Amino acid sequence: MTSMGDKGSVQTQTKVLSQGCWTEVSCPCCVSKQVEPLVLIQLSDNVQPVTKRWLISLIEASKRHGGAALLTHPGEDECRNVIVVSAPRCTLLRATEDLGLCKKYHNEEMASFSYHDRDNFTNVDDMQKFLTLVERQYIVKNELDSLQAQKKQRIPGVPEAPGVLEAWENICQKLVRAGVIKDIFPLHDQQRLNDLGRRWYSKKQIWRQPLDAIQSYFGGTMAFYFSFLQFYTWALVPPAFLGLVLTFLLPGGGGVVKEQAGEGVMEEEDYGLSVSGHMVQAVFSMLWSTVFIEFWKRRSSSLSHRWGTRHLTERFAEPRPGFHGTLGINPVTGRLEPLFPEWQRQLRVGLVSLPLVGLFLGLVVLGMTGFYHGEALVQGFHQDSGSLFSGVLLYMPSIAHTVYTTILKNMYHAVAMQLTKWENHREESSFQNHHITKVLLFTFFNNFAVLFHIAFYKQDLPLLRKKLASLLILNQLVNQCTEVVVPFIVDHFLSAPHKKEQEDDLEMDKLRAQRRLPPFPGLFAEYIELLVKFGYLSLFSCVYPLTAVLLLLNNVTEIPWDAYKICKLFRKPFSTPVSNMGVWQTAFEVLGFVSVMSNCWLLLLSPRVQEFCLEGGISGKNIILVAILVEHVLILVKMVLAFMIPDEPDWVRIKREQIEFNSMQALGQQKL
Amino acid sequence: MTSMGDKGSVQTQTKVLSQGCWTEVSCPCCVSKQVEPLVLIQLSDNVQPVTKRWLISLIEASKRHGGAALLTHPGEDECRNVIVVSAPRCTLLRATEDLGLCKKYHNEEMASFSYHDRDNFTNVDDMQKFLTLVERQYIVKNELDSLQAQKKQRIPGVPEAPGVLEAWENICQKLVRAGVIKDIFPLHDQQRLNDLGRRWYSKKQIWRQPLDAIQSYFGGTMAFYFSFLQFYTWALVPPAFLGLVLTFLLPGGGGVVKEQAGEGVMEEEDYGLSVSGHMVQAVFSMLWSTVFIEFWKRRSSSLSHRWGTRHLTERFAEPRPGFHGTLGINPVTGRLEPLFPEWQRQLRVGLVSLPLVGLFLGLVVLGMTGFYHGEALVQGFHQDSGSLFSGVLLYMPSIAHTVYTTILKNMYHAVAMQLTKWENHREESSFQNHHITKVLLFTFFNNFAVLFHIAFYKQDLPLLRKKLASLLILNQLVNQCTEVVVPFIVDHFLSAPHKKEQEDDLEMDKLRAQRRLPPFPGLFAEYIELLVKFGYLSLFSCVYPLTAVLLLLNNVTEIPWDAYKICKLFRKPFSTPVSNMGVWQTAFEVLGFVSVMSNCWLLLLSPRVQEFCLEGGISGKNIILVAILVEHVLILVKMVLAFMIPDEPDWVRIKREQIEFNSMQALGQQKL
Repeated sequence: MTSMGDKGSVQTQTKVLSQGCWTEVSCPCCVSKQVEPLVLIQLSDNVQPVTKRWLISLIEASKRHGGAALLTHPGEDECRNVIVVSAPRCTLLRATEDLGLCKKYHNEEMASFSYHDRDNFTNVDDMQKFLTLVERQYIVKNELDSLQAQKKQRIPGVPEAPGVLEAWENICQKLVRAGVIKDIFPLHDQQRLNDLGRRWYSKKQIWRQPLDAIQSYFGGTMAFYFSFLQFYTWALVPPAFLGLVLTFLLPGGGGVVKEQAGEGVMEEEDYGLSVSGHMVQAVFSMLWSTVFIEFWKRRSSSLSHRWGTRHLTERFAEPRPGFHGTLGINPVTGRLEPLFPEWQRQLRVGLVSLPLVGLFLGLVVLGMTGFYHGEALVQGFHQDSGSLFSGVLLYMPSIAHTVYTTILKNMYHAVAMQLTKWENHREESSFQNHHITKVLLFTFFNNFAVLFHIAFYKQDLPLLRKKLASLLILNQLVNQCTEVVVPFIVDHFLSAPHKKEQEDDLEMDKLRAQRRLPPFPGLFAEYIELLVKFGYLSLFSCVYPLTAVLLLLNNVTEIPWDAYKICKLFRKPFSTPVSNMGVWQTAFEVLGFVSVMSNCWLLLLSPRVQEFCLEGGISGKNIILVAILVEHVLILVKMVLAFMIPDEPDWVRIKREQIEFNSMQALGQQKL
Repeated sequence: MTSMGDKGSVQTQTKVLSQGCWTEVSCPCCVSKQVEPLVLIQLSDNVQPVTKRWLISLIEASKRHGGAALLTHPGEDECRNVIVVSAPRCTLLRATEDLGLCKKYHNEEMASFSYHDRDNFTNVDDMQKFLTLVERQYIVKNELDSLQAQKKQRIPGVPEAPGVLEAWENICQKLVRAGVIKDIFPLHDQQRLNDLGRRWYSKKQIWRQPLDAIQSYFGGTMAFYFSFLQFYTWALVPPAFLGLVLTFLLPGGGGVVKEQAGEGVMEEEDYGLSVSGHMVQAVFSMLWSTVFIEFWKRRSSSLSHRWGTRHLTERFAEPRPGFHGTLGINPVTGRLEPLFPEWQRQLRVGLVSLPLVGLFLGLVVLGMTGFYHGEALVQGFHQDSGSLFSGVLLYMPSIAHTVYTTILKNMYHAVAMQLTKWENHREESSFQNHHITKVLLFTFFNNFAVLFHIAFYKQDLPLLRKKLASLLILNQLVNQCTEVVVPFIVDHFLSAPHKKEQEDDLEMDKLRAQRRLPPFPGLFAEYIELLVKFGYLSLFSCVYPLTAVLLLLNNVTEIPWDAYKICKLFRKPFSTPVSNMGVWQTAFEVLGFVSVMSNCWLLLLSPRVQEFCLEGGISGKNIILVAILVEHVLILVKMVLAFMIPDEPDWVRIKREQIEFNSMQALGQQKL
């Protein structure tokens, strides 16, 4: 985790920030020769020196005096409107205990960190080895965020109205609103970043990414995403293999739609897979999606054990920065903060958000209708002419529809974000849940409504196969292009001046360069994309067994591209310690559930199966009744399977219980 | 909660136990004139005085010296083989904090009890008002259970082999195994019990039971059961009303099966309810079961807030008393305790328990087959003769089958208990889960397999209705009988000597009388019965709308009878503080889920609906497809509904967050 030469990199990085200007520390254990710059506070250009001095003194003050107990550096001469912040050892250690992070004990086991027992933990004297960079930066951010006005007071150098702090008001949020603070962001450590990049995207480490290094540099959120991506890629190997076997080796195989032929061949294509192949693929899909999710949970729990984030303390959530309302007393904390009545929020959700979401879903249906008209038109034309051109034209409605849905998607994403902001949720988690629910609902509808409609209403399996193939191949092409084009542009045109600066090694210039980068937008879009593709696979792959192969190809190009994007194109994001993928894991599970139903009915609709049943003398009505029974039994099997596979490996369970038991014992002894 | 004259009752109860013999306390805050006897340790008759003295000194010793810090009374002259145990104030208060119980703060709000802050809690000087009787008794039990040998030692007065205590071995379990301790049970407080009885079953308080008094005397498990029963009874009013309206007021109504008529009328009976009535009942059942469970959760959370059990601390589970294995080091605690390999347990579950359960399920099917043969035989006979006798005979197969299943049930319950014991689970919770799962599986199969078979395989709705009615009415009759007969026998024959003793007011005789009562078997059977009846209602009530009426009647007789049973026929049980109904709530939720499917398909099978559809020109295959769609949509609606109704009322949520926030603040300040 800490093998990337921490010490060396700090020395190079801080070459230019004069060490003498850092806050002097009185606590003997916190004295160190080199102070590492962690977080940058970007002030507005016209900030008064008195305001800056006041803010610095506040950040430096001890907790007893309402400060954050951090270290500050006022920046060099040529760069007056920044404050660089670092943290002394004591603050870091206390925060580690408060967060509930686990660290290595002297017996090499993980243990919940306790400040009283600090000397028994390994590396406790060297903060750069003890905590990861991202943890140190998060702690600084957290301490800054928890600054509260001790009493009603004025902010020096800020005019009347916005300059008055009420008692217990959050100072950072107030300063952002008052325009004093423009931004707070963690600093990149260029040397470690380059090291990481070399080990990660440059070598195209798709099957074995440096996950620990990612976790230590970018934090848990990112590390879990890439771990999941890697796990998912490995998990795609069996279905891809099966898909290849079913398509090319089995008798009656051949899922590739032969375009040039007319309706007659199409009809034959209907029987794309032999009945047994079709069944194997459908049952395999169901089992695979369950086993995949369950094993990911195990993997996830062992990762969070390794990263020490399994026992995070729950805290009372502070209001999110964008939250506004009339100032009042929060009934829970008794503190002054903006209040916004729940019923008003629910009215906004019910009367505005819901209808608007409905409108967009309506637009999806409109697009679908348009697609069918176009399809019918082109089919008619193709039957009349039968040329190569009209054959190519057959793909046009699909492509046009894909473009339409893409545009609609982007519009909706903007609208969903604005709506959720306007709903004015108090907690970040509630905001996230409403936002993600909105986007997921639309995304599923937008991506799968057409496929479901084709599959279950029109019951036109060849069309379904064609549609699925075109979606997957188009996607793959777009991805490949961006992966090649964007890095080329960045490396050859945009980052050239950066390189010059690097040679000069001017710290302040580097800071300025980081400020120019756009903030990291989060992994939202990446997860949505993963989910949609997982949906194609688990819901519909039995009609087009090559899905898994295409997705495997896609992931192989996706991982280095995502890694490159994150390392090169954005500012370093703050990262809250997390113990799993959170709500996204639930989304994958739900999709896994729907896949049982989908596969069951797709299997039933397959003409080969129907023919097979008719030969066996089973009537249509009874087939459906049997299918209903099979569906319910399969759901039961899925649930039993999910229940039987424990969510954490045995060794992780024992370690977890050990940690819990030891913490409890320690607490009991402290009381005695 | 404490309005039942605690002080007075202690004085009468302890009249005979001479106060001078109690342990003398050194701590000034624990001194009190009257010590209340809480728990009785029943030793074996041939116990050595030296063993008894050793045990007493151990119980009295402070925690630092490995004792339980409790008070003991060696019993009066004529009753040498008991130790009566009580607890001093300090021990009670510290245990209250350890358990995580909430108590009234000086500002009348509930707050997590903290020993450091004890003076700010109301009634903290009077343990009888501060803690409920059941809490004091549980704390004593808990302290006794946590007695561990500090080092390897011999038990004085116990011969070689069973008399050696290993280091960290659980002393009470060892003494039970060595035959020194026969039993440990909490003592009844006769006066409070009589008070409670007067307010509870004597007045037939079905709609407003004295829940707080039940909670304070019998503990949370019992109180939640009776709260649920009361809530359920209230909740049955709307479906009962609907059932009456549908049966007697609507045109085409009349769910009562007219027995005397032949097949022709039977056919007509098929149409028992008008199509709209049938649909109303089915949809109502689904919604009702969801809303019922969701609102119970809200009620449950507000009850646990009132009783201060919402924030119980989780502890590392000790092995259950019956657990055995080779002594070894537990990897989690590092203590010596019996170990039993997990794979061996799983082998036992998989290779023995599962097949045996399967065998019993097979016996259920055998019974069902027998029932059909009988049914066919009787039907034939009735058609031949058509007499009143043969008409009555029509009910015979149903009754015989009910008797068969009852016998099978009792056998199975014994087998399930033995099997689960033999599986040798380490934790009590794991034991309970395996046991409950076994019993529930069989119970559902035993009670509902016939009904499902009749409903969905034979699709014979009149038979279903007849079967349901006979089950419900028979049940009701049996209940009524026991309710009248058993109390009569107990009051007139068994409890006569008790009454005499009471007049003499000899404390030791009362203790002896309590020892003669059987131990309380738990609420297992009661919950199973409730679940089965809830199943009749939510799964099948749409074919027989009077179900709710019969269940309402049943509950009205059930509540006083259960209350009587618990107060009069058993020893007082220990009761662990709980915050909800636990696994039983889940069972009700699962049943609610199955009810959506059941109602949906019952609706579809109703001949009226089928006729209606045929008139509307919808083919059989399409009806089924529509029904599938409707089922999935209804399940979705149910889930959305369950999600929309918050699991705790707003005021409880705010109070909970307040308590959590305050505890966190207090912890933070303690650290500073």
